[in-house]
Amino acid sequence: MRARLKALIESRAWEAAIIGIIIANAIVLGLETDARVMRAFGDLLELLDRVILAIFVIEIVLRIYVHRLSFFRDPWSIFDFSIVALALFPTTGPLQVLRALRILRVLRLISVVPSLRRVIGGLIAALPGMGSIIVLLVMVFYVFSVMATNLFGASFPDWFGSIPRSLYSLFQIMTLESWSMGIVRPVMEVYPMAWLFFVPFIISTTYAVLNLFIGVIVSAMQHESEAAASEDRHAIQDANEAVMAELRLLRGELAEMRNEYRNK
Amino acid sequence: MRARLKALIESRAWEAAIIGIIIANAIVLGLETDARVMRAFGDLLELLDRVILAIFVIEIVLRIYVHRLSFFRDPWSIFDFSIVALALFPTTGPLQVLRALRILRVLRLISVVPSLRRVIGGLIAALPGMGSIIVLLVMVFYVFSVMATNLFGASFPDWFGSIPRSLYSLFQIMTLESWSMGIVRPVMEVYPMAWLFFVPFIISTTYAVLNLFIGVIVSAMQHESEAAASEDRHAIQDANEAVMAELRLLRGELAEMRNEYRNK
Amino acid sequence: MRARLKALIESRAWEAAIIGIIIANAIVLGLETDARVMRAFGDLLELLDRVILAIFVIEIVLRIYVHRLSFFRDPWSIFDFSIVALALFPTTGPLQVLRALRILRVLRLISVVPSLRRVIGGLIAALPGMGSIIVLLVMVFYVFSVMATNLFGASFPDWFGSIPRSLYSLFQIMTLESWSMGIVRPVMEVYPMAWLFFVPFIISTTYAVLNLFIGVIVSAMQHESEAAASEDRHAIQDANEAVMAELRLLRGELAEMRNEYRNK
Amino acid sequence: MRARLKALIESRAWEAAIIGIIIANAIVLGLETDARVMRAFGDLLELLDRVILAIFVIEIVLRIYVHRLSFFRDPWSIFDFSIVALALFPTTGPLQVLRALRILRVLRLISVVPSLRRVIGGLIAALPGMGSIIVLLVMVFYVFSVMATNLFGASFPDWFGSIPRSLYSLFQIMTLESWSMGIVRPVMEVYPMAWLFFVPFIISTTYAVLNLFIGVIVSAMQHESEAAASEDRHAIQDANEAVMAELRLLRGELAEMRNEYRNK
Repeated sequence: MRARLKALIESRAWEAAIIGIIIANAIVLGLETDARVMRAFGDLLELLDRVILAIFVIEIVLRIYVHRLSFFRDPWSIFDFSIVALALFPTTGPLQVLRALRILRVLRLISVVPSLRRVIGGLIAALPGMGSIIVLLVMVFYVFSVMATNLFGASFPDWFGSIPRSLYSLFQIMTLESWSMGIVRPVMEVYPMAWLFFVPFIISTTYAVLNLFIGVIVSAMQHESEAAASEDRHAIQDANEAVMAELRLLRGELAEMRNEYRNK
Repeated sequence: MRARLKALIESRAWEAAIIGIIIANAIVLGLETDARVMRAFGDLLELLDRVILAIFVIEIVLRIYVHRLSFFRDPWSIFDFSIVALALFPTTGPLQVLRALRILRVLRLISVVPSLRRVIGGLIAALPGMGSIIVLLVMVFYVFSVMATNLFGASFPDWFGSIPRSLYSLFQIMTLESWSMGIVRPVMEVYPMAWLFFVPFIISTTYAVLNLFIGVIVSAMQHESEAAASEDRHAIQDANEAVMAELRLLRGELAEMRNEYRNK
Repeated sequence: MRARLKALIESRAWEAAIIGIIIANAIVLGLETDARVMRAFGDLLELLDRVILAIFVIEIVLRIYVHRLSFFRDPWSIFDFSIVALALFPTTGPLQVLRALRILRVLRLISVVPSLRRVIGGLIAALPGMGSIIVLLVMVFYVFSVMATNLFGASFPDWFGSIPRSLYSLFQIMTLESWSMGIVRPVMEVYPMAWLFFVPFIISTTYAVLNLFIGVIVSAMQHESEAAASEDRHAIQDANEAVMAELRLLRGELAEMRNEYRNK
Repeated sequence: MRARLKALIESRAWEAAIIGIIIANAIVLGLETDARVMRAFGDLLELLDRVILAIFVIEIVLRIYVHRLSFFRDPWSIFDFSIVALALFPTTGPLQVLRALRILRVLRLISVVPSLRRVIGGLIAALPGMGSIIVLLVMVFYVFSVMATNLFGASFPDWFGSIPRSLYSLFQIMTLESWSMGIVRPVMEVYPMAWLFFVPFIISTTYAVLNLFIGVIVSAMQHESEAAASEDRHAIQDANEAVMAELRLLRGELAEMRNEYRNK
């Protein structure tokens, strides 16, 4: 029974069906955002959404039954589980926002389609190499936001009134959005030297983010060039082995000739 | 007859003439945008435009006559055909906007000038390698726009009132244009936690677009390094063959010497 | 006389003096922008500027005397000549703007300092490889600006009233500055489908500029990897020659041995 | 005594303790920005801050005692020293701004954690290679700011009234923030040809900054490819040595054979 279920849920048809249901769910949830469509077909769409959710729950239950505890060892399974589990919470009262998270189920496409899973895997694999720069960026953000709160918080409470507000404003400044006309010029009208704070911040964070990007490019390139280099080394080795074999033959013949000569 | 026409439309002079006519058309259509010029030379410009269109139609007809059905197998021919065909629709009433599309004929330069065709070919050839990331981006955009419509649509109908509006606003936010001062700060005045939605959106889409770029760079580089590596391998092979030839000579001489010695 | 002048103007001391004078000129012209400084030392600064200009004129005259006509064959000499000649035009009446161009003399630092000259040389050398993409960008800009003038010119004369205005607005949109909040959203209030025009424009020009950048990176990289590859090939060649020399020695000895044996 | 102290301050436990104290200091200084927290625990936080400062002072004194004058030869030690010394200035009156700089002590994490120190080292090591382009950028900024002050200073004193103001506005324009809607369009209403000044400025500085980035990428890549190339060369050398050893053996045997033959 369990083996047959395993074969079923690992079959190509099952995968295709799940992909189809995910896309159907995406369309249903998209249609639900339209007030006119909801007035006409609201009940039908709600029903469809419940049916699809039921299918997802059944699929997860089957996979847990088949894989037992090892289900919870695969990060993608946990991802699927969390997304489906989210939909089982009550969506009334303070948790109403969870209703909007139902659309996250579309992200299950990533765990189902192998090529998308590989891309996400690649994006995540690039992160550890950027660890030190990310720590540095977090530190720079924290230091500058504490300073901004101390220096400008009293005069500009909306932008720099507390550390979270400063962090948000500095993130905006790092993306260069309205940094000068929107924030720094007004600040400079009160503190004329404020550019001494913001221009270095922009230059250093931009430079750090640039180096983050470069790190990703270089490490991607490294994989490529290492592959090429190992091919080179194989070519060298092959050439070398061919010559050595030939030389050994030659020496063998020389040795034979010497023997013949001695015995003559 | 057909062979001579083929020789004609594939001659360098014909190509130069077509390029000249395309540029003339570009100038004519540019002049037509100026009201004063139109008052003075409007009729002449209209006439010139009609003459040029007639030439283009004749050229396409000739090419179809020469290449027969294989004309429609070349994507660049279809491109030329569609652009010229566009100009034959009536440009009155609801289709008046098509008049503005006449300038697209200038894009025929791409199909005529080989170096431009190669560049476009290269740009398009880089796309399939980015397929998975583009699918991912589309998915992220769809998921976030459904969520934005559900969460902020009621309070900000202009920005997030429907899925197309949310898609447009999220595209604007991804380009970082006025994302904070123009959109997110006003939204945060109603929903103080809205940054939890927008900041992750900015970081994830920016990171995805970055990886799209990196993919293009790395694949361009790969071509280069593969070319270099294959040259290396040739050098190794050449060196190897020279040594092997020398060794074979040596062995030949050794064998001869042994024969001489035996027969002595 | 001419040879001694040549030795003089090519000496290190002369170069250092010219650099010093250029920097002094930069400072003088910078001070002249300050009204208070001008009130106190205006006459002195004007005098200094004239003296420095005289020195530059003499230097150029000397170089023309020394190099004769070949002076005008070196692009950097023509650059120096034009910048200095600019200062000799009358700066009253309609040409008053030329007074502001005096500061361009500071750019002579580039032609004097070799490392700066190399950087500029490198920047210019990267341009031809980008030729096709630049032609393409110009074409896309022209096509879109003619279309924008036809489609939106009547309703938004400030932004799209003529081709030059459209070109400027599209350049602004390509840099992503206020493209949505400042331009496209207002346009969409009159023409709701305008995003069909602007979003493809943004995506295609951004993608083209990206490919321009990638071209520069890849060609810079190519130089590096070619250098590395040629070193590799030398190493292979050296190794090969050593082996071949050894093999030839071996064959020589074999031949001698055979001779000895025959003559015995 | 001094040797034992040296062992102590270089121990892992000491490093961990310092890291802990730096993080505690970061939290304390962060909490001090909150008015409600300060009302409740202000005295305690001030006390903690003083205690932590005292520990830092003692640590620096110990390190100076241990390393003597060589302490001042290590740039990271000078960095630590300056940051701690900053906190000893009086923070009343005109120097009140120094109070906000206390948070800079968090940057000591960089000098304590080796991986962060390496990242910063890498970022700084990339700078000299960019020297020429940075000089060029500074020159372009100076030239354009003098010109902007002369041309637009009278009509737009807030943006271009003096060289520092022009430098700031041009920096804003280089980051593309509100360059057109905020600055260049208003300027063009007075000086319609102003785009001839600003568009070249944007293109040239963007291109220069791009080349700065490319320089960093290429030099990072160079390290990688040099490492790969040196590995290649080792493989070639190893292969070559093996062949040469074999050849020498062969020659030795041949010589022996010849000897045997002669003596027969």
